[in-house]
This record gives sequence, structure tokens and C-alpha cells, in this order.
Amino acid sequence: MSAAAKTTNDSAPTSTARRVAWHIPASQVAQRTLNPIRQIVDHMKIAPNKDKEMISLSIGDPTIYGNFDIDEFANEAMIKVIKSKRSNGYPPSFGYQHARASIAAKYTIPTAPLTANDVIIGSGASDALNICITGLCDSGTNILLPRPGFPLYETLATSKGIEVRYYNLLPEKNWEVDLGHLESLVDDKTSCILVNNPSNPCGSVYTRPHLEQILALCARHHLPVISDEIYDGLPFAGNVFHPIASLTDEVPVLAVGGIAKQYCVPGWRVGWILIHDRNDVLKEARQGLISLSQLILGANSLVQGALPEILHNTPQKFYDDTLAQLEARIQLTDGKLGDLMPLRSCFISTILSIST
Amino acid sequence: MSAAAKTTNDSAPTSTARRVAWHIPASQVAQRTLNPIRQIVDHMKIAPNKDKEMISLSIGDPTIYGNFDIDEFANEAMIKVIKSKRSNGYPPSFGYQHARASIAAKYTIPTAPLTANDVIIGSGASDALNICITGLCDSGTNILLPRPGFPLYETLATSKGIEVRYYNLLPEKNWEVDLGHLESLVDDKTSCILVNNPSNPCGSVYTRPHLEQILALCARHHLPVISDEIYDGLPFAGNVFHPIASLTDEVPVLAVGGIAKQYCVPGWRVGWILIHDRNDVLKEARQGLISLSQLILGANSLVQGALPEILHNTPQKFYDDTLAQLEARIQLTDGKLGDLMPLRSCFISTILSIST
Ligand SMILES: Cc1ncc(COP(=O)(O)O)c(C=O)c1O
Ligand SMILES: Cc1ncc(COP(=O)(O)O)c(C=O)c1O
Repeated sequence: MSAAAKTTNDSAPTSTARRVAWHIPASQVAQRTLNPIRQIVDHMKIAPNKDKEMISLSIGDPTIYGNFDIDEFANEAMIKVIKSKRSNGYPPSFGYQHARASIAAKYTIPTAPLTANDVIIGSGASDALNICITGLCDSGTNILLPRPGFPLYETLATSKGIEVRYYNLLPEKNWEVDLGHLESLVDDKTSCILVNNPSNPCGSVYTRPHLEQILALCARHHLPVISDEIYDGLPFAGNVFHPIASLTDEVPVLAVGGIAKQYCVPGWRVGWILIHDRNDVLKEARQGLISLSQLILGANSLVQGALPEILHNTPQKFYDDTLAQLEARIQLTDGKLGDLMPLRSCFISTILSIST
Repeated sequence: MSAAAKTTNDSAPTSTARRVAWHIPASQVAQRTLNPIRQIVDHMKIAPNKDKEMISLSIGDPTIYGNFDIDEFANEAMIKVIKSKRSNGYPPSFGYQHARASIAAKYTIPTAPLTANDVIIGSGASDALNICITGLCDSGTNILLPRPGFPLYETLATSKGIEVRYYNLLPEKNWEVDLGHLESLVDDKTSCILVNNPSNPCGSVYTRPHLEQILALCARHHLPVISDEIYDGLPFAGNVFHPIASLTDEVPVLAVGGIAKQYCVPGWRVGWILIHDRNDVLKEARQGLISLSQLILGANSLVQGALPEILHNTPQKFYDDTLAQLEARIQLTDGKLGDLMPLRSCFISTILSIST
């Protein structure tokens, strides 16, 4: 740096100045990282009212209050893997080949074919979402997120300096996407659209025509979709779940899933990305997702080792029982809350009409 | 935006333009994320020479070639946790209280006291390092890293736009830090110094006076230390390991550790940050580290559940046997490689004198 270019101000640090005191702030990224759910849940210490029985309204974790049965079969599969001593080493950062193959085999369908190479395993769907968002969106671009929606999406995006734009879901239309509103948010800095189906917290399961409308919009604007389908195994009676990737030949889709919800084991931390890219437009991005998986070296090897068993050999009775238990919980509230439950979901939503 | 401020160029996209084709590059962050080890190891498919027996020179994973004994006790602890069905839910993103307490109890010493609140559990030491580097360093600042050193440090830093400056280790001085060189790299954009002791790949274990010299330098420049001490349990006979935090009252230290190496279970993905901050200068940064742990919701709950057992009740025989096995491996090469092995390490280093 030339002397002339340098501001002459004795107290200002020069480029080779020492720090002169212990002042160590959190980085900008850390300061931008706010997860509203965890901030409440992780620090919650409530002294219950001794005169009343506590009704825990819970978080989206079907295990900790003991109100759902654990998958015995998954436990047995884990014990087998531990005893085999074959799954203690580092898997590839994006997952064991056999674990990825078992995910592909479970989710491949003729209209959305998958091989092991189309699967990246992460440390939970959270990590999978983090990799998708980080891999597709640059700081300074924007991502379109559902409102209401799972708050982690915003946490992940804003921590990376990605602008969040919320598109409305319409309660009066089963929480479908307000397509006009969604389209009005798109500009040349939009990097992708995140869709969550079945929806947390709304419980909505989108119809095929509605998903096709969303895809048509994405095609018009050449926007890839991140589709959070972690609740795919839990649509309630009467709803049919369609993987969005199965309804398009054109729009590239990163579908995110995991075992947390379906198998009632959120602490096990295994999720995945299914890369649906039938025209090779995600070639560079795909390599980017793999690179990003190398930052933390992926998911627990024991659960990965047990994944083929869990995904393919869990007895049908477990799935049936889980759905039946969910239905039973929902019926607890049926008819008792008036208009308070517009859709069947793991959460109860209320709509408040506030007159001021 | 006013019309006047807008460049009038018909072909340039305006701020509300659509993308006009399927061009989806990897994000800048993804493009900057390169992990040289994993890029080789994850894609390695070598057809062995049938005429010769293969000598695997391996990666830093003591399990996959079956050449180290697994900790039977850790396996039993895991099976007990699975059968208890008490550790399947979401732990706090920074780890179960009892798991953090067990880490604190293992590592607290009078000169470097720790409580559960000073511990953040991550998905492996990799995740712990990622959280430390992301939490302390802003894009545009620089971090000082050892050369030679573990390549992940650079991967993590450059992915975040943090400048990497390498300080030299001196092979002729048991790979001690070249303090003059280190100090010459410090400027007002330096965010922290990363020290790796015991060192991968050098195998060096720093003496107390050398660590004090490093700390004095950090104190002069008010630089916090990230100390990767994951090999703390594996110093070979004759070397004494000192946690750097135990030698300072002033310099704040984030010490990173984990179970991967000591217990031969790298795939289990549990590591931690020990926050040594006796003068509360990391108060904001500490909150930042916790926020960052909320991005992927932390480490596998089963391993966390087993951690108190593994850390505190593993029979001494396992530790002794592991060290003895390492020593035996090292003796395989003793005397046979001439000057090729300057220090005892899990890796064999060679110094090439190249005359051109
Ligand atoms: C919609 C949705 N996506 C992702 C996740 C995170 O899943 P995981 O526990 O596998 O990280 C959750 C958990 O609550 C969720 O509700
Ligand atoms: C020096 C060093 N630090 C950290 C790690 C990563 O440890 P983990 O497997 O717990 O992520 C390694 C693994 O090779 C290492 O050698």
C-alpha cells in the first residue's frame, strides 16, 4: 500500500497493526444465525404448575414424551450392525454406497428414476437442506420460502447472506401456494424455490394439479426446486402424496428426506438429498453438493449401516401402527376445537381473527 | 429504482427479469469448498496388482482395514443405550446435558476448569472445527494454519471466504512452530491462530515451554486460539501432552476433541468444543457457537447417550492395548527407513532433498 493511499490517522489500525485488546465478537455469520425453535426448546426450563397436570404441546419430536412406539425393528438392525463391527470407519462424506443404493431403491419410480449416484446422505434432513441451500444459492441472491413454514429454512438462508422472500400459503385453499404471489416475488436474483410437501406445520398434502402448477411456474423462470418431503411417509388417510420430481421431465429437483419422522428416531441424524436432474443441468451443482458434504464428513456410520434393513425390511405393521397412532391423536381434538384445525397435521393450527 | 438510474441495455436482465435458460452453476461457496483428502479417498477405485500383495498405506482411519481392535466396551455401551430407548429424540443442538457434563468431567483440570456449559458437542471434530472457524472468523479476515497440517482446516476456511495464511513448522526442531514466521503473518485482519497438538501428520507433541511461547505471541496480539487436540489420548511413550488452555489465564482457547481416534470409531461422528474463556472475552462468540450448532442440530443421540460410559468406564486395558498396537506398528518401520521418520506418528513422513 502506498503512503499516499493511506489515511493518516494515528489511532486507526494499519494493515499490520496488532489488535490492542481482547475484543472477540461473534462472526457476522454467527450473528445472522438464528433458529427460533431451538432457541426456545434448547433453553426451556419450565417449572410445572403443581396443581395441574401438564399438557405438553411438544415440538416435532415424536419420541421424547414417550407417546409413540419406537421401531423395534430399527433398534434390532442397529444392534446387528454394531455387533458386526463393519461400520465404524469413515464412510465417504456423502454416504456408504450400499446405504445410498438402498435409499435409491426405496424412492426410485419410473417417472422419477434414481440410482445410488443420485443420493447424498447428510447428518439429518437439516444437514441435507443446509447443503442444498448452500450449494444452489449465493449470498446476495434470494430464495423463495413458504409462509407459514419450517423456520430452519430461513435460519439456513440468512446465515449465508441469502435473502429470504416468503410466498403465502392459502389457509382457505388447504394451504396451497398462492401462485400469483409466488410469481410476483421472482426476479433475476432468485436462485430457487423451496416447497415443503407434506407441509410442516400445515399438514397439507398437495394435489397433483397443484404441484403441476408450481412446476409450470418454475419452468417459466428456469428455477430449480428444493422439495422438503421428509413427511412423505405420513400423509393421513385420504391424502395421496406425489413426489414433485415425478411430475416433471424438465425442472430439476433436489428432494430432501430422512428417517427422523417416519421411524420416530430424530436423534439418529440421517437424512438425504435425492438429485432429480434428467437433463444434466445440475452437473456443476451436483459436484458442489458433494464438495459441501466434505465439510463435516456426513452422517453416523452405524445408522448408515442399518439403513438398508430399516428402509426395506421394517414390517408393514410398524408403518400402519404409526399412522394409526397419529390418527388417534388427531381424533382426540376432532370436533372439540371448532374451526381451530383446518387440516390434519402433527401440529394444531389456529386462525385468529383479530379486530382492532 | 428510478428509470434514470437504470442502464438502458435491452439484453441485460433487469431486476425483475426471468432466467432465460437452465443454467444452474454451483454456488460460490460450493465452488470454493475443496477437501483434497476426501476427493481422493471417496472416489478411489484401485485395481490391485494381482502378482503382489497390497500394502495399504491407508488414511487416518484405524478401523477400516481391520488392523485395530474395536472398543468392545463402547459397543456394549451403545447397545445398552439402544435397548433403553431413551436416546432417540432430538438432543439440544449443542448436545445432551449429561453428555456435555461427562466431557467436562473428563477434561476439567484445576488449571483449565470446565463445566457442562463450556462444552458444545458437534457431529465429529470436523463439525466442531467448522463451528469454531465459522464462529470466530469473518469473510475477509485471515486465519493462521500450520504447514504441514490437516487439510480440512483450509477447506473449512476457504469455503467461507476466510483467507488462509500458513505458518511453518520446523522439521529440524521436532516440527515446532516457526514463531518468527508465525508472528510475521499477523495483521489487523487476523482472527485467530489454529494449533494442532499432537500434530497430524507430524506426530509432534509440543513441550510446555513451546506452548507458552505460542501463547505469549497470542497474548501480544490478542488472538484467540483454536487448538485441535483430537490426538490428545495418543501421545507415544516419552511424550507428555499439555492442553494449551492449561497454560494460560489470559488467552481464550477453543479446544477441539472427539472420540474418533482414541476409541477407533471415526464413523460415529461425535466431537466437541471445550470453551476456555476465563475472562469472559468470548461471551458473544460463545453464543455464536451455540447458534451455529442449530444449523444441523448436532450429533447422533445414541452415541451421545453412550458417551458418559465410554469416556469414564472404558477399561484401562483398552487404552493400553491401543497404544501398544500403535507402538508395534511403528516398530515395523524402525531402523528400516533411515532418516525417513523424523517423529513417531500415525503417518510416515519423508523429507525429500531435491537437487535441481
Ligand atoms: C419440514 C421439516 N424438514 C426438516 C426437518 C429436519 O429433519 P432432521 O431431524 O432429519 O434434520 C424437520 C424437523 O422438524 C421438519 O419438520
Ligand atoms: C487433526 C485432525 N482433526 C480433526 C479430524 C476430524 O475428526 P472427526 O472424524 O471427529 O471429524 C481429524 C481426522 O482425521 C484429524 O486428523
